[in-house]
Amino acid sequence: MIDATHDPQLSSWVASANGHADFPIQNLPFGIFSPPATDSGQECQPRGGVAIGDSILDIGEALARGLITAEAQPAANAAAGATLNAWLEQGVESRLALRRCVSRLLSEATSVGGEEFDRAAMQRAGLLYYAADCTLQLPAHIGDYTDFYAGINHASTVGKILRPDAPLLPNYKHLPIAYHGRASSIRTSGTPVRRPWGQTKSPDAENPTFSASRRLDFELELGVWIGPSTNLGEPLPIARAHQHIAGYCLLNDWSARDIQAWEYQPLGPFLAKNFLTSISPWIVTAQALEPFRQAQAPRPAGDPQPLPYLWEDGDQAHGALNIGLEVYLSTAGMRLKELPAQRISRSNSRYLYWTVAQMLTHHTSGGCNLRAGDLLGSGTISAESDGYGSLLEISDGGKRPLTLSGGEQRTFLQDGDEILIRARAERAGFVSIGFGECRGIVVAAGATL
Amino acid sequence: MIDATHDPQLSSWVASANGHADFPIQNLPFGIFSPPATDSGQECQPRGGVAIGDSILDIGEALARGLITAEAQPAANAAAGATLNAWLEQGVESRLALRRCVSRLLSEATSVGGEEFDRAAMQRAGLLYYAADCTLQLPAHIGDYTDFYAGINHASTVGKILRPDAPLLPNYKHLPIAYHGRASSIRTSGTPVRRPWGQTKSPDAENPTFSASRRLDFELELGVWIGPSTNLGEPLPIARAHQHIAGYCLLNDWSARDIQAWEYQPLGPFLAKNFLTSISPWIVTAQALEPFRQAQAPRPAGDPQPLPYLWEDGDQAHGALNIGLEVYLSTAGMRLKELPAQRISRSNSRYLYWTVAQMLTHHTSGGCNLRAGDLLGSGTISAESDGYGSLLEISDGGKRPLTLSGGEQRTFLQDGDEILIRARAERAGFVSIGFGECRGIVVAAGATL
Repeated sequence: MIDATHDPQLSSWVASANGHADFPIQNLPFGIFSPPATDSGQECQPRGGVAIGDSILDIGEALARGLITAEAQPAANAAAGATLNAWLEQGVESRLALRRCVSRLLSEATSVGGEEFDRAAMQRAGLLYYAADCTLQLPAHIGDYTDFYAGINHASTVGKILRPDAPLLPNYKHLPIAYHGRASSIRTSGTPVRRPWGQTKSPDAENPTFSASRRLDFELELGVWIGPSTNLGEPLPIARAHQHIAGYCLLNDWSARDIQAWEYQPLGPFLAKNFLTSISPWIVTAQALEPFRQAQAPRPAGDPQPLPYLWEDGDQAHGALNIGLEVYLSTAGMRLKELPAQRISRSNSRYLYWTVAQMLTHHTSGGCNLRAGDLLGSGTISAESDGYGSLLEISDGGKRPLTLSGGEQRTFLQDGDEILIRARAERAGFVSIGFGECRGIVVAAGATL
Repeated sequence: MIDATHDPQLSSWVASANGHADFPIQNLPFGIFSPPATDSGQECQPRGGVAIGDSILDIGEALARGLITAEAQPAANAAAGATLNAWLEQGVESRLALRRCVSRLLSEATSVGGEEFDRAAMQRAGLLYYAADCTLQLPAHIGDYTDFYAGINHASTVGKILRPDAPLLPNYKHLPIAYHGRASSIRTSGTPVRRPWGQTKSPDAENPTFSASRRLDFELELGVWIGPSTNLGEPLPIARAHQHIAGYCLLNDWSARDIQAWEYQPLGPFLAKNFLTSISPWIVTAQALEPFRQAQAPRPAGDPQPLPYLWEDGDQAHGALNIGLEVYLSTAGMRLKELPAQRISRSNSRYLYWTVAQMLTHHTSGGCNLRAGDLLGSGTISAESDGYGSLLEISDGGKRPLTLSGGEQRTFLQDGDEILIRARAERAGFVSIGFGECRGIVVAAGATL
């Protein structure tokens, strides 16, 4: 539902929010942050906050000072702790009440409890921090992480590299393919990407070798935060699926292509993916993204109609998101020459063949339960030729190097390379909102085992 | 290390422990239990306990009454709460100190703090409960669940059904194949197995259909409890891997073969497995199983030597476990006729091609971290023809029905069928120990989506 929190006229007394690329007052994403250490050097506990421009509002502090309305207090209490799992467990209405309350609190036009808000006073009171002084944490304890494969251009292009005659397997257009990923190694933006060791075997070698990966890659994905939980044995009808989509983030599914090629049959990727997954730390809420929902593109002529459990007339309404995605690469050499990071991909979430609602319903259709704090990956979102979401695609399986602005070439990532993912939801008549950053710099492999 | 806790002369003042098939005083597995509601009807909080014969010792209560020695107190404190994650996070020495303390406490020969122990007094004091009066819970919060594929007979037999010309893929003997499983749907023994709905496609059909699974199967596995944690980016050398194996349980990896066949390419099993995984609730500790470790069987002539990171001379010592495994099936019809459950499989953990230490080292070799409370599945452990660990193998892919004692036939599981897994570690000169039960009864599919 589009409501007053999306009003493009709304501005904030946090001046940096007005015109901010990511976090204007129309966004209000939730995250977990640690404020800077106190003057006496004491570490501050992680806590829930809302990003506003260059700053973060401390939810617990706002609650303690009586700035949260009664209807918003359940969600605020749930968002004040060291993880957002309890907030994710809240129903849509409860989270929406908090969003509305925070929107009023941060709005220029508002005076709450008779107080005029003023940035300096708010900072003195410990209600507001500069984000740059804070440390962002994982927003929730991630119970399970599931990675989908819903980017059809990626699936086709990668399939073409592996199986020229049958790029897409017969099941692809009938169900949203997915596999279980690794929750323990998900980290927030900025965590270095240690190049993994692993078993690889070149096609002409008789035996595998154990070496540092030579085909390290990124994958451009959206992350989906689940909440509230569902029950074991209770499939989620597609009409209700969107009620369990709490929000979104950016996700980089780092992949070691050489390890993957040798290990993935018959049970799927394992070590090729589980050494690290990076996410942007802010949960951009489904509510904030309401204006950017749009009809799912019609399926190409000849594509099968999904089975009824994956389809509904209302699916169009709950369907696709229009989020522009960008990937930037900067190498150590480029940074030395002070060259800016180079955009190597432009894509859009519209290229997903399956909606997130379809993913959730399929995931639960056999009875599997979802828990608040579970994370889904969308699968690599590739557009067409200028918008591939991985170097595997950009370099055509390593055969066609990418030439960078400083003259360097890349097929796969080298040590010192940094990948930055950004995203932006735009629609005429609305203030566009962003996701913050998801970045990671590749560091050399450690000692061998 | 084999120590006084394994002494076959040791007996307990809990008389039922002496000669108990599963839980003699030489075992002492840890779990989480809820005592029966109090006389006033108040629910009791889940807490850590140790199984002894037909009873459970309350660790927190023993601690509160000063019955735990100083060196055992860190582990006892860690085992007293509502999950055993903190106990799993303890180092081997700390957990061993608690084992030794509990062994003395439950031993007939012991008087601690000047008190003679007496079953009735212990029960009155809330130190000891009848297990049958208690509810067993999941012993830990499971961070990640990884399912290996280390049962080579299963991999060969299933491979033969799918790919007659190439049963084992080329990577099988070079690395322990695994995939990430679903943690949210792991439940303890006794949880009903709701038949899942799912997409299936018969080979001659043009399109898939959505229906209740017609090829529901069990898989006989051992579960491995991880603890303490390892760090991201720090592979675990095989010489230290056994320090992170806290204990074992029984695991039934329920599988819907028809759903699996249609969905599993190219990223592995997903909904075919994630509707439920059943485990036995007691963690049989690696310490308790020390006497039952044995040299790994030599690899068949011609099999490749594993790469150095997966091999060490000491591997023989840390290697294989000798645990006898049994699967029983009883149908509703058999129970009506009061026929006993029929043993349909006898196998042994020796049939695992990879040791658990090899699994751990491989899992971390690219940098993936393990957390205390992670669970591994061994993969289906099939012996030879009388010891298949799944109906897929027993019925040769559904082609050769199994005839049961009451005259019924089965290819796959029908509603009302119950699968029971039991296990027993035996060695001459030692008291054999068991794992308790892992059972589950199939119930009819719910309403369709």
